[in-house]
Amino acid sequence: MAKEITNRSDDYSLWYNNIVRKAGLADHSAVRGCMVIKPYGFAIWENMKAELDRKFKETGHVNAYFPLFIPKSFLSKEAEHVDGFAKECAVVTHHRLMNNPNGTGVVVDPDAKLEEELIVRPTSETIIWNTYRDWIKSYRDLPLLINQWANVVRWEMRTRPFLRTAEFLWQEGHTAHATKEEAIAEARMIHDVYADFAENYMAMPVIQGAKSANERFAGAVDTFTIEALMQDGKALQAGTSHFLGQNFAKAFDVKYSNKENKEAYVWATSWGVSTRLVGGLIMTHSDDEGLVLPPKLAPDQVVIVPIPKPLPEIMEKVEEIARELRDLGIRVKIDDNDQKRPGFKFAEYEMKGVPVRLGLGKRDLANNVIEVARRDTKEKQSVPQAGIANYVKDLLEEIQSNLLNKAKAFRTEKTSSVDTLDEFKEVLESKGGFILAHWDGTSESEKKIKELTNATIRCIPNDFVEEAGKCIYSGNPSKGRVVFAKSY
Amino acid sequence: MAKEITNRSDDYSLWYNNIVRKAGLADHSAVRGCMVIKPYGFAIWENMKAELDRKFKETGHVNAYFPLFIPKSFLSKEAEHVDGFAKECAVVTHHRLMNNPNGTGVVVDPDAKLEEELIVRPTSETIIWNTYRDWIKSYRDLPLLINQWANVVRWEMRTRPFLRTAEFLWQEGHTAHATKEEAIAEARMIHDVYADFAENYMAMPVIQGAKSANERFAGAVDTFTIEALMQDGKALQAGTSHFLGQNFAKAFDVKYSNKENKEAYVWATSWGVSTRLVGGLIMTHSDDEGLVLPPKLAPDQVVIVPIPKPLPEIMEKVEEIARELRDLGIRVKIDDNDQKRPGFKFAEYEMKGVPVRLGLGKRDLANNVIEVARRDTKEKQSVPQAGIANYVKDLLEEIQSNLLNKAKAFRTEKTSSVDTLDEFKEVLESKGGFILAHWDGTSESEKKIKELTNATIRCIPNDFVEEAGKCIYSGNPSKGRVVFAKSY
Repeated sequence: MAKEITNRSDDYSLWYNNIVRKAGLADHSAVRGCMVIKPYGFAIWENMKAELDRKFKETGHVNAYFPLFIPKSFLSKEAEHVDGFAKECAVVTHHRLMNNPNGTGVVVDPDAKLEEELIVRPTSETIIWNTYRDWIKSYRDLPLLINQWANVVRWEMRTRPFLRTAEFLWQEGHTAHATKEEAIAEARMIHDVYADFAENYMAMPVIQGAKSANERFAGAVDTFTIEALMQDGKALQAGTSHFLGQNFAKAFDVKYSNKENKEAYVWATSWGVSTRLVGGLIMTHSDDEGLVLPPKLAPDQVVIVPIPKPLPEIMEKVEEIARELRDLGIRVKIDDNDQKRPGFKFAEYEMKGVPVRLGLGKRDLANNVIEVARRDTKEKQSVPQAGIANYVKDLLEEIQSNLLNKAKAFRTEKTSSVDTLDEFKEVLESKGGFILAHWDGTSESEKKIKELTNATIRCIPNDFVEEAGKCIYSGNPSKGRVVFAKSY
Repeated sequence: MAKEITNRSDDYSLWYNNIVRKAGLADHSAVRGCMVIKPYGFAIWENMKAELDRKFKETGHVNAYFPLFIPKSFLSKEAEHVDGFAKECAVVTHHRLMNNPNGTGVVVDPDAKLEEELIVRPTSETIIWNTYRDWIKSYRDLPLLINQWANVVRWEMRTRPFLRTAEFLWQEGHTAHATKEEAIAEARMIHDVYADFAENYMAMPVIQGAKSANERFAGAVDTFTIEALMQDGKALQAGTSHFLGQNFAKAFDVKYSNKENKEAYVWATSWGVSTRLVGGLIMTHSDDEGLVLPPKLAPDQVVIVPIPKPLPEIMEKVEEIARELRDLGIRVKIDDNDQKRPGFKFAEYEMKGVPVRLGLGKRDLANNVIEVARRDTKEKQSVPQAGIANYVKDLLEEIQSNLLNKAKAFRTEKTSSVDTLDEFKEVLESKGGFILAHWDGTSESEKKIKELTNATIRCIPNDFVEEAGKCIYSGNPSKGRVVFAKSY
């Protein structure tokens, strides 16, 4: 079979696009910058959603749904927010089409112009805080812990499937609190939920930290981020949780009366992860043969292939083994297609990243064994059929932790500590990855480093170590190292 | 406590709006015709989604996601579809805002006009069939059984929460088949899935049937519908499943090569239910005290209220009973708020339609009993604590079937058979409901009856009985009775 995808070392970007396409994750659409999420890609997102939703509910949040559209004037109400979001967005100006007077097709009805244009939400702080004004009167109404699963649109110029698309799917949490401390604790708690999900479900290690002022969400007082490292040495911002202070409460006049019956502005957070996570998942684990998926998020954790074809006596045993696996809660696919040869199927499931493949032929049947192939290491082994379900269950756990360990080792290898700008540039060019370096804390130095190197401060890490040093750009005193990288 | 909602008999429409508002289901938004679905209302929709999604997957469907936007020209490609959907819709004409040159707020950037306008999807047949052209080459690619959970926008002039809103949430299934028979079987199978869900989960009896030509989906060859009866005697179209013939395949040139290697157009279905179901659920069961919910869809199936307040010795038993209930898979809420009196709480849960309320006071504790109140009949009973979990489990099942039986009895009472137009008008005015009457099968007679009475043919029922008669409008021969009603 011809090699279907480009090697990472030849063209990383093309490799990524090849995997998205050949593994059946997403497709281009007729609408600029918008992708179609194909069933296999969507099933990964569904698994992510289910687990995140469970975590949000477990921590006291409920789901709701707010309108897709935002009145244009709302975007201007929060001074910084408008600069961040009232730019490239989809603007609805009319509400009717009519038959073209020339007889062909339809045209916009000029009489159906909206009084005020509507923006397709790029994020929902404004419409939600405009609603919260009616919902919050007293301290008894707080905290308000709401999440929304929704589509949002940002008119990006350069798009890539999952990583950056004009429309994407996400969840956005929007919470309201009586005190500053409570709001900060909420933003930090969600920050931990995201990190836990990334590491323990996606097997994608992340650095947790706070964004510098330049990189904060437009309208936030503090932005907490999880930063993952992709195989090309670039960082991916995988999720953010914002402490919004009272900015939106003031912009939308949301006050509550406290126990002493005094009025005060409400404190806010917002936080989100998106289908971008699917892009991160692909780039963290996959190899030159195709997609590699951690078992916890794989749509099919095990595929069973009858060899050379679905003969009745083989299928009987296949069904029996599938039942045993399913009884342990394992997601199993049986490929009983009789039009395709086993070799073709093996290549297909390798491409699709199914963690474990079981092959059962006549000789296996006679010997009471089954062939077990794992996707992560590509090892194959003949294993007794007796006890196979528990064997596979353990193997799935081993694959899950192997993927995390491998990604952690890669990150360790690609994390450097440097002390001068020259060294910084040299490391960035030669190996990329995360670079720990001293910074004087000013926006000016940060901007200059970005201009000179294209790298940005990914975060001031949670495990920031106080250490006197000199800023690699200005030479001014620094209190410790922050995390730099080029990024998506 | 003051009566919070209007009686049905005084103002049915106001009663409905009161319940939506007071039970915390939805709220108005700042955007014309768009509602905010509040957490309690959204939890009902989540329960509906979970069950429907399970049923779709069980019948071989997978989920995917297609773009929110549809290029304007796509709508014109299917001749009937354009008349139905290229009318009142949200039109995106620009992709950028800019600071207002006069210094206040933002305005649309005139330089950012799109070459071709984009329509916010009112339904997705066009964008999906444009995609299917690339996905379907051979009979091996069929059937394609895809569903999408999404938001859609139709610029409705008169809106009501859940029943008719500019933006709503729904699922839309879009399937592709090699043969006409297979496509019809799919549309009918989903029709049955919808009816089963309505009756056995929503406890909302429905009439299954086919739409007349006038009432079909724009672009469909046949539309199958489920029609429910609301308490004001009006019908609610609760879900539709369409056999689309080859209309969209021809409009978007979707062909496959069959086993003989000959090319043929693909056969299609589409089908959907929406947040309108929440409106139907409210109107089917609720009463003058508030919302009434069937246990299978209630966010909280049981609420436990400590009386007179959450004292430690009472809470210990409350927690124990809650655990027993949860072990049986029952959704339980404990109301341990010590700021509200029990009477206030009772009224609140009555308003919110929680199926079973348990009250536990000191005397109950001493006597090893607990007070059980059911929302549907408002009966209260003192029940031994021993075995309470199984007692409640059985009670929830009884409530579920009682609600269905009550709704069925109501429908039977409100279903009439008439033979003349005068009788038709008389019954429509005096009691409303479903009216079975003879019709000659022509669009003309159907339109005239609608003009004269405001009633439409809801469907030609699946259990249509062949019976010679005369059309109530034209007097021409009819082969049997069809179902008329005024509708939402």
